[in-house]
Amino acid sequence: MAKQVLVIGGGFAGFNVARQLGGVSDVEVTLVDRQNHHLFQPLLYQVATAGLSPADIASPIRKMLSRFHNIRVFQGDAKSINLDDREVTFDFGKLVYDYLAVACGATHCYFGHDEWEKYAPGLKTITEATEIRRRVLSAFEQAERIEHPEEQKRQLTFVIIGGGPTGVELAGAIGEMSRFTLAQDFRRINPRLTRVILIEAGPRILPMFSEKQAGRAARDLENLGVQVWSSTPVTNVDADGVEMGEEKIRAATVLWAAGTEASRLKWVPEIDVDKRGRVFVEPDLSIPDHPEVFIAGDQANFSHQTGKPLPGTAPVAFQQGHAIGGNILHELRGKRRKNFHFVDKGQMATIGRSRAIVEIGRFAFAGGFAWLTWLFIHIYYLTGFKNRLLVILKWGWSYRNFDRGARLIVEKNPDHTLEFPSAESE
Amino acid sequence: MAKQVLVIGGGFAGFNVARQLGGVSDVEVTLVDRQNHHLFQPLLYQVATAGLSPADIASPIRKMLSRFHNIRVFQGDAKSINLDDREVTFDFGKLVYDYLAVACGATHCYFGHDEWEKYAPGLKTITEATEIRRRVLSAFEQAERIEHPEEQKRQLTFVIIGGGPTGVELAGAIGEMSRFTLAQDFRRINPRLTRVILIEAGPRILPMFSEKQAGRAARDLENLGVQVWSSTPVTNVDADGVEMGEEKIRAATVLWAAGTEASRLKWVPEIDVDKRGRVFVEPDLSIPDHPEVFIAGDQANFSHQTGKPLPGTAPVAFQQGHAIGGNILHELRGKRRKNFHFVDKGQMATIGRSRAIVEIGRFAFAGGFAWLTWLFIHIYYLTGFKNRLLVILKWGWSYRNFDRGARLIVEKNPDHTLEFPSAESE
Repeated sequence: MAKQVLVIGGGFAGFNVARQLGGVSDVEVTLVDRQNHHLFQPLLYQVATAGLSPADIASPIRKMLSRFHNIRVFQGDAKSINLDDREVTFDFGKLVYDYLAVACGATHCYFGHDEWEKYAPGLKTITEATEIRRRVLSAFEQAERIEHPEEQKRQLTFVIIGGGPTGVELAGAIGEMSRFTLAQDFRRINPRLTRVILIEAGPRILPMFSEKQAGRAARDLENLGVQVWSSTPVTNVDADGVEMGEEKIRAATVLWAAGTEASRLKWVPEIDVDKRGRVFVEPDLSIPDHPEVFIAGDQANFSHQTGKPLPGTAPVAFQQGHAIGGNILHELRGKRRKNFHFVDKGQMATIGRSRAIVEIGRFAFAGGFAWLTWLFIHIYYLTGFKNRLLVILKWGWSYRNFDRGARLIVEKNPDHTLEFPSAESE
Repeated sequence: MAKQVLVIGGGFAGFNVARQLGGVSDVEVTLVDRQNHHLFQPLLYQVATAGLSPADIASPIRKMLSRFHNIRVFQGDAKSINLDDREVTFDFGKLVYDYLAVACGATHCYFGHDEWEKYAPGLKTITEATEIRRRVLSAFEQAERIEHPEEQKRQLTFVIIGGGPTGVELAGAIGEMSRFTLAQDFRRINPRLTRVILIEAGPRILPMFSEKQAGRAARDLENLGVQVWSSTPVTNVDADGVEMGEEKIRAATVLWAAGTEASRLKWVPEIDVDKRGRVFVEPDLSIPDHPEVFIAGDQANFSHQTGKPLPGTAPVAFQQGHAIGGNILHELRGKRRKNFHFVDKGQMATIGRSRAIVEIGRFAFAGGFAWLTWLFIHIYYLTGFKNRLLVILKWGWSYRNFDRGARLIVEKNPDHTLEFPSAESE
């Protein structure tokens, strides 16, 4: 009887668990994800800022795994996990497992102010990226067609909350768009007068980088017209703009890149999570008392290596998924499990179309060469030949022309199409 | 004082009116469209069937016209036209004109059964195309994850209503997708068992083509697993499927390609329209008693050439826009207007990845060479070098691999992001 491996989540972590077990005899793998596509999250900000189309950075999960006949893929939403019965309830029914890998990723955290979400959307899914794209482009359209100067200024003010890599990349892309891409396209407004403000509560942006590198990034942002306001905690966000204590900025577009927390699931019986919803895992990424259940990626609190949790980055998720698949394989072959060890290959962030900062071990560099390094590493990891080639061409074109080819404002679905008879469970 | 030319609509017709007047001294052009993008409608079915991304067939209007400094572009919705005051009211305010060109295109017509729209969406906008894509792909996902055979069959049944070019192209693409693209990707279901049914009320599909060519298209459709049911008027559409008199088909996905009518506007005073909402125009495309007001494209009933209205196709819209721009120019230069004469360069329809039918004057051909003709003509007319190159590459890839690169199911925006503070008027 083949062992049933159930994987929840088709991101970097879950996808790698499944791929490790692809083609292995006497293992049957079921991967369930809420979306039908695997998403290359590190480039999602490019979709939000009209540089790339959604399909450039996403691929259907079942196509990516279709050559493995022992893997089946369902689109579905996990409702609860019963550890005693080894059974997971989804919106479409129940599935049992011999091994379970949970990797549902993270969602935005508004630190107790969920009411801010509608005014300041975050960036985790394709839907959110196209919504952000729509808001950013619509603000310029709105500014062009109204004549009230105060309201024009509000429309041309973009506030990004959170100075991590996502906030920096969003702010840089919007700054560049206003200074170069859109500069010639309007008649009443001058897009170059756009205010782009990156707000960070902590003393500086990009705290995971060295102070020198973060300073370099801040200067590169300034060259694109972005102002960095550090040590500035946000106290309110509403339809009008952002408040920071006594200060207030009127902004039509506010984006949230300030915090995430692990996607929460219902566990029966309950298990321990940290204050950001991450599950405390053992050195082999399993949970206490249940060696058949593994957690990976943004949902795992793995503190055995450095004493504090590993960050919620793509390389961590990627390597953890790989390790879990490997450990299941080891155990089925009668070998001992290995403890997980994260190999840090460095980190990078990009600012606009030609600047980046890179840290690889003791080496740190910035500027044009860092940007090329960033570009090639991201293209290399983009899944599938087709995507890689097209992405290179699109970027080559954008680079030459300061163009952003995906500048579409797509209407939300009007109410009359909101009914969706073919998937009651959505 | 420069003459004010106001153009409503940025499709093939409106865009060409504006472009004709671009760079002309003592003319100021204002183009207003509900969308920010010009759309290459003839390839919209490729977006609906995951072959192309929205940005491949759409371009920002203001970018396409940015080199003409006498043209300004607004995103907005026309509410009413006052002929006596020469003034148009938009959602963002009022604009006056010396010349007005109206080219808002067409919308779906359900022949008095508007309640069918939510069950059988039509294909006119990017939003509708991505909604159709979502329904088609979700039906396969839903069939894979449920076990009830009756419901699986319902999910794997696709009904396309309307046997014109759009219906034929949609049916062919879905048939091909089920027979080739998705064939290996599922475990429980066999996508090759998908039922694709093209329903036409009239005696045959593609009535604008010769009987021989339409027959050829029907056979090509059959080779892709599509059944053509002609002489079959639909009597009801609901969440369960489609009724045709005594017959009934259970189908989770029903698509509407059966009829269009001109977008309706409020005219003060009222003007004459035909039963499909098209405005009766003079030989020079102006309206009676108002030589300063022109109508073009799907909104115009131009019967002076053949005794019946010209069809609502891209070439007609294109040439009419060109003619209106030319006539305004003539008049400003003190010359006489010319009557519009449509030059028919032929027609074509494509069936799947390698078959098409083409009629050019007395020449008619079909098959692989017709498909190449179709391909090159469509790529040639796609606006902008970037789009052309990328589209060729994507298709080359799809052609080799029976792949559809844009197989994304994108969630509708969850309720909490439906609030959109930066464009109250949307």
